[in-house]
Amino acid sequence: MQPIRLGLLGLGTVGSAVVRIIAENAERISGRAGGPVEVRRALVRDTGRTRDLPKGGAVELTTDPAAITEAKDIDVIVEVMGGMTLAPELVKQAMRNGKHVVTANKDALATFGVELSKVALDNNVGLYYEAAAAGGIPIIKTIAEALTGNRIKALMGIINGTTNYMLTRMTREGSSFDDVLAEAQALGYAEADPTSDVEGHDAAYKLAILAGLAFDVNVDINEVHREGITAITPEDIRNADELGYTIKLLGIARENDGKIEARVHPTLIPTVHPLASVNDAFNAVFIDGDAVGELMLYGRGAGGGPTASAVLADIVDACQNIRLGISGRLTAPTALQQLLPITETTSRYYIAISVAEQTGVLASIATAFAKEGVSLASVIQKGHASDPVSLVLVTHSVKEKHVRAALDAIAQLPTVHSITNTLRVEG
Amino acid sequence: MQPIRLGLLGLGTVGSAVVRIIAENAERISGRAGGPVEVRRALVRDTGRTRDLPKGGAVELTTDPAAITEAKDIDVIVEVMGGMTLAPELVKQAMRNGKHVVTANKDALATFGVELSKVALDNNVGLYYEAAAAGGIPIIKTIAEALTGNRIKALMGIINGTTNYMLTRMTREGSSFDDVLAEAQALGYAEADPTSDVEGHDAAYKLAILAGLAFDVNVDINEVHREGITAITPEDIRNADELGYTIKLLGIARENDGKIEARVHPTLIPTVHPLASVNDAFNAVFIDGDAVGELMLYGRGAGGGPTASAVLADIVDACQNIRLGISGRLTAPTALQQLLPITETTSRYYIAISVAEQTGVLASIATAFAKEGVSLASVIQKGHASDPVSLVLVTHSVKEKHVRAALDAIAQLPTVHSITNTLRVEG
Repeated sequence: MQPIRLGLLGLGTVGSAVVRIIAENAERISGRAGGPVEVRRALVRDTGRTRDLPKGGAVELTTDPAAITEAKDIDVIVEVMGGMTLAPELVKQAMRNGKHVVTANKDALATFGVELSKVALDNNVGLYYEAAAAGGIPIIKTIAEALTGNRIKALMGIINGTTNYMLTRMTREGSSFDDVLAEAQALGYAEADPTSDVEGHDAAYKLAILAGLAFDVNVDINEVHREGITAITPEDIRNADELGYTIKLLGIARENDGKIEARVHPTLIPTVHPLASVNDAFNAVFIDGDAVGELMLYGRGAGGGPTASAVLADIVDACQNIRLGISGRLTAPTALQQLLPITETTSRYYIAISVAEQTGVLASIATAFAKEGVSLASVIQKGHASDPVSLVLVTHSVKEKHVRAALDAIAQLPTVHSITNTLRVEG
Repeated sequence: MQPIRLGLLGLGTVGSAVVRIIAENAERISGRAGGPVEVRRALVRDTGRTRDLPKGGAVELTTDPAAITEAKDIDVIVEVMGGMTLAPELVKQAMRNGKHVVTANKDALATFGVELSKVALDNNVGLYYEAAAAGGIPIIKTIAEALTGNRIKALMGIINGTTNYMLTRMTREGSSFDDVLAEAQALGYAEADPTSDVEGHDAAYKLAILAGLAFDVNVDINEVHREGITAITPEDIRNADELGYTIKLLGIARENDGKIEARVHPTLIPTVHPLASVNDAFNAVFIDGDAVGELMLYGRGAGGGPTASAVLADIVDACQNIRLGISGRLTAPTALQQLLPITETTSRYYIAISVAEQTGVLASIATAFAKEGVSLASVIQKGHASDPVSLVLVTHSVKEKHVRAALDAIAQLPTVHSITNTLRVEG
């Protein structure tokens, strides 16, 4: 039987792992793929570099993208180079040349997903992206196939390993954000410029992909509300713990009265919630479906092996579909829909306020909240007979715009030093 | 487009949920299934009974199995009647008549899986069983499709909701097995005859299905080692907690030196292990794959909605495959392989021994262990200056046969009242 021939765009950690797994598990993979699978060629920057590739393999190395995107002897492109400079254009070219695409590129998908889906559709090729949303966790397949019978009500995910590692350390050790970041950078867990992780960009890309699939909408990445973890203090983590919560950076997407909300922000979740015990660099996606109820998938969201595992699942699906003469089963989002603005979303809120130690302070704050219809579930005063004193409040469920209006008024009160932090509470 | 026509064997909780979901999510389901899906007919015991079926639906009720298994106007049989009396034979008849089968029947699959797979293969029809192993958790799809690129090293699952609910209550409240069982029965969480759950039969069926798929072997259900939770005492749970462990009833399958082991038994797992925080009636399956690393799926293993969610995923897969003109993608296990006997498996062990309060007792016990090459990781003496005293030991990793030999010798020591409990420690 003719082998299905793969062309790799990129041969870094993930690409090399894909080559190694195909060599090691050849029999199992060809059994599932309906015939042999072969890595024919890989695009690299430098063909002269020594690489740790399986012996006996015949992977041609090339520095010419066209040798892959336009090659007659390539059936499936595996895009594991990442980034936004070259990859999206190469993927489009390849699809226009009739090649099926497996990609792990979250940035490209979140930004150009609709366009890429359209090119795939127009050229009758498959576009597969299991590795783009949560690494080794089979969340795309689960949403697209296993949960077909469900209306998904909400999706909440820990989808950035670096920040989860940092928050886990801060929670366990009481360390500050800056100290943990420096250590994570020293250990190679965080990048020299950590912006994409700690400001929630990486998580927002992944959430856009997941929300689009779960709610069958086209999510504009620029509409996803995004807050990072840079403002989280050891005090917030201690306060949360005292109230029975753990702080996690969550990507949350939810159907809300016919509209979809999608937001990435640090969140207090009950310590008994399954997401609360997802620690270190692990990822997890929690889904509430109308039939299945609560479902959570937990695993590694990054790294060569886990990402390659997801890429391989896509390769096998692509091979099956090619042999069946059909394109990929994922449908492009049909509905173009504006996200619900963050001010219209509903949540409970954790609010830390620094105030003067003075009679009547709490009364004036409570009055300001009441004026906007914000009711308080709990109030803790931290630090006694010191000045300033810290008030920690948790609200009942309320629309964000009312909280914002109340906090604007409270910030003007003469007895209030500052609003130290405002975080959402879920679960 | 011609609808795919379903015939339901059984219209209880799961069957009714399937009918309701298909009615409620018709558009989404037909979109994914490549065309309309219709419940044509259902086998029931009594056609006169009032049922809560969606209005406007045209589900014919029949008491004649042949009106489904032999009907020309049925494409897919959905077996949700369960049990071993009628179901396996009806499923075989239907497949011989060219009908694809979706089944939630774990007993039938674990007992006759190889035979059913063969009938499916011989008649070129699909046999789908996502709902049979862990209800709403998409573990079959994950193993069969998402983890294709992996060699699975081990699989550990909490796959019986009743016992997990009971152990959770015992852990939280310190209650005895008998008290929790009585309460679970009163609440309808446990059956009047709880044997299938508390003795681990239900979990063993599911483990046989999962192990067969994960390791591509044919597992004889009678070879699966099985221990229930009836002997677990509040003291065991307290001791485990003190040592940093939680007790769960686990189904464990593992590749061990070329052989497969499959066993169901109460197990001490570290409280930080992801499985340890799976509480109440929730199920979870933890997998260690060579590429993906640690992966866990968590959700509801039983109930109408979750089971119907899994059945629906299978129905949609079956519809796609019928429209593509191919049978199901699951392959029958090819290798027939004997399981590793439990005496040859390796584990750490928790051992509680009731002894006389007397100098030299510990020395004689330690000597007996040492003679069999069993080394001890920790020893705690519970109860001081009382008689008898309880010794709680945890061994290092060792083959079961050596532990058994040592305990046989220890039971003969004059200072030993009894071996109170022996449990395995994993994770």
